[in-house]
Amino acid sequence: MTRTHTIGPLFTDFYELTMAASYFDHHVFDSATFSVFIRNQPMLRSYFVAAGLEQVVDELNNFHFNDCEIAYLKETDLFSADFLSYLTDLRFTGQLRAMAEGTIFFPNEPILEISAPIIEAQLLETFILNTIGFQTMIATKAARCIHAAKGRPLLDFSLRRTQGQDAGNKVARSTYLAGFNSTSNVLAGKLYDIPLSGTMAHSFVTAFESEIDAFQAFYKTFPDASVFLIDTYDTLEGARNAARVAKHMQQHGHHLIGVRLDSGDMTELSQQVRAILDEEGLPNVKIFVSSGFDEFKITDVLARGARIDAFGVGTKMGVSADAPYLDIVYKMVRYKDRNVRKLSSEKITLAGEKQLFRKYDPNGFYAEDTIGLRDDIIEGTEPLLETIMENGKIVAPIPPLQTIRGRFKQNFSKLDDRFKTCKKVYPVHLSTRLKRLQDIV
Amino acid sequence: MTRTHTIGPLFTDFYELTMAASYFDHHVFDSATFSVFIRNQPMLRSYFVAAGLEQVVDELNNFHFNDCEIAYLKETDLFSADFLSYLTDLRFTGQLRAMAEGTIFFPNEPILEISAPIIEAQLLETFILNTIGFQTMIATKAARCIHAAKGRPLLDFSLRRTQGQDAGNKVARSTYLAGFNSTSNVLAGKLYDIPLSGTMAHSFVTAFESEIDAFQAFYKTFPDASVFLIDTYDTLEGARNAARVAKHMQQHGHHLIGVRLDSGDMTELSQQVRAILDEEGLPNVKIFVSSGFDEFKITDVLARGARIDAFGVGTKMGVSADAPYLDIVYKMVRYKDRNVRKLSSEKITLAGEKQLFRKYDPNGFYAEDTIGLRDDIIEGTEPLLETIMENGKIVAPIPPLQTIRGRFKQNFSKLDDRFKTCKKVYPVHLSTRLKRLQDIV
Repeated sequence: MTRTHTIGPLFTDFYELTMAASYFDHHVFDSATFSVFIRNQPMLRSYFVAAGLEQVVDELNNFHFNDCEIAYLKETDLFSADFLSYLTDLRFTGQLRAMAEGTIFFPNEPILEISAPIIEAQLLETFILNTIGFQTMIATKAARCIHAAKGRPLLDFSLRRTQGQDAGNKVARSTYLAGFNSTSNVLAGKLYDIPLSGTMAHSFVTAFESEIDAFQAFYKTFPDASVFLIDTYDTLEGARNAARVAKHMQQHGHHLIGVRLDSGDMTELSQQVRAILDEEGLPNVKIFVSSGFDEFKITDVLARGARIDAFGVGTKMGVSADAPYLDIVYKMVRYKDRNVRKLSSEKITLAGEKQLFRKYDPNGFYAEDTIGLRDDIIEGTEPLLETIMENGKIVAPIPPLQTIRGRFKQNFSKLDDRFKTCKKVYPVHLSTRLKRLQDIV
Repeated sequence: MTRTHTIGPLFTDFYELTMAASYFDHHVFDSATFSVFIRNQPMLRSYFVAAGLEQVVDELNNFHFNDCEIAYLKETDLFSADFLSYLTDLRFTGQLRAMAEGTIFFPNEPILEISAPIIEAQLLETFILNTIGFQTMIATKAARCIHAAKGRPLLDFSLRRTQGQDAGNKVARSTYLAGFNSTSNVLAGKLYDIPLSGTMAHSFVTAFESEIDAFQAFYKTFPDASVFLIDTYDTLEGARNAARVAKHMQQHGHHLIGVRLDSGDMTELSQQVRAILDEEGLPNVKIFVSSGFDEFKITDVLARGARIDAFGVGTKMGVSADAPYLDIVYKMVRYKDRNVRKLSSEKITLAGEKQLFRKYDPNGFYAEDTIGLRDDIIEGTEPLLETIMENGKIVAPIPPLQTIRGRFKQNFSKLDDRFKTCKKVYPVHLSTRLKRLQDIV
């Protein structure tokens, strides 16, 4: 039996299974709550964009070990027949509480909590961290690019250098969620109904006798959907060749969408190419750029006066190159009737099941957050964690990606620009009751 | 139809398909050769370890568009019925030449070449770059960790923070290829027959009334396969608790494999814990560590005298944090009877179909490499690229992972240690004929 849709429960660290076996041996079946949060990296990220919940719900809703998976575990000779039989019947029967995808949040705030018999909750750790961590990291990086581009369209061009195949698809989904216009990833376009973009590479241009031959050939196939890549030989000569073909297209009732630059000094070249296109009476032919763009390079070229209409954003965004992992953790905060936490060392966690409360200012902007106990009541705030699954069943279905995308856009407009860089820390407090609990655990 | 094994041809940048449609329109079907190499990042990586070929061969061998994929392309309204019909019948009919997995190579050297009708060759670009690039990056990072650990076992603990699910599995395979002993990733263990490792997390310890209760419970389930995590409360007290249980185990004929430290100053703590275990007459109980290890931290703690027997290596290795992408490219070097290359800007490529020639010194160590034309003959050297597929059929099957792992180990012993850091550049030349060709292209 091969899985076709979910990844399955073997996508886990082995210790989740050895711990489960020992819990089973000792009849440890009480309910535990695990809380997910991201530790502070203050120089790198001031805010995060929640993403990945859809896949978590899908996996939990289909959680089971199939025969082939049980047979593999049996081969290890480490697990008793009773335990394997128990795993065969295991389903997720617990509660999932989480903030909606597209929610903006801050370091140390609870993103998601699982309450379930301890074996179920423990077995989900690795999958949840991987799934929420990666997609949140990319949605966050994408949001930073969106902010830098000041309204200009962004295109996801990262697929060739994402860290594997699943990453390529999840980058397309997470960037679209955060406001990108399209992706070059055809499979992701199909999976998630994301618009596609892409026209030609340098190899296309070199496969024809001349650059102008290549442009003409392409336009004949895509008379109203062409963007010509103009830097294969000489960028300014390429711009003139593109202009020649564009004017020919106009005479036949067609329109060249744009030209693309993929190398060189983007500020200077974009200004020169804009001048050539304008002189040729082609002010509506747009300038696309690609090659090494991320939020830092976008900010830089725009500050220097680049004439760029849209950015293809690739590798550095697709691997979150300046911060390629988040310090995301899944920590037990309650077991049976005890609030618990790990005490040693620098890695402090807060005991207790939590809720996150957001307060708005009179203009609708985010004012401050309070991390509280789940049953805290904090007037004048919006609680952000909601119950998504109860007794293993979905009670709040995940909305379509378009809805999530719209929600993020609205959320992002409510976060004051000064909190969108790492220079200003957004205020996050602990509630009185949560603080008091830590003293008595 | 859902794919269960291969990822399929929609895992591609959209422009590969628009170029293909235009080639088709203009009857451009001649053969092209594309060459894959990694541009130099001299401060970050001095050598690379080839990985990922197995999946490339598997995908090329099964290359086809299924009905569901064609239907999706039809929905875009950009492609003619004739072109879609052509795609439906398309299979890989070309040649694949590549260096074996586990081969050590250097910047700008050809890793893999595809020669096929241009549409086939073009459509494979994104998949090949993603597949070879990521796995080579991780195998290389893993080799750097292996070198730093000086013979101590390394365990892949990265799964929770790899960039998605496919990455998690490929990291396990690539690290095992490069000499890691095991992985925590159960699914990868099943997929690739890699030994598993992992025992307990902090949550296990906190789920019991006391630390010693947790150790005893675990030992009863795994009497001969236990490693106790000792830093949940106080590391040195944890070491004493572990020693108590270990001596109890000895009385019952069992052996504690080790203890694990996951926080704090690893050098100092490992020395103190070693002293406690030795005093208790437990010199065979090993010290495992985890938390933030990569080649840099391994080197550092060993230089400072840490008493560590094995390293769990996680996040920073699993995302190659110091170099989270390679500048890997897939460039057309020949089309029809012409040698071609892109000329503009700083990104120079070398025209022509290539071979890589390695020369050894009298002691069997690598002496120097020459990048030459495919039909160069360079005496006293070993050619490293071999034909893997011909006319779309496999002619040199990929060996088992164990064989590749053994080959890498042997190769790595032939690379002098001074080339294993970025301080000394391994000599790579161009052959006379390859140089001459560039002048006349």
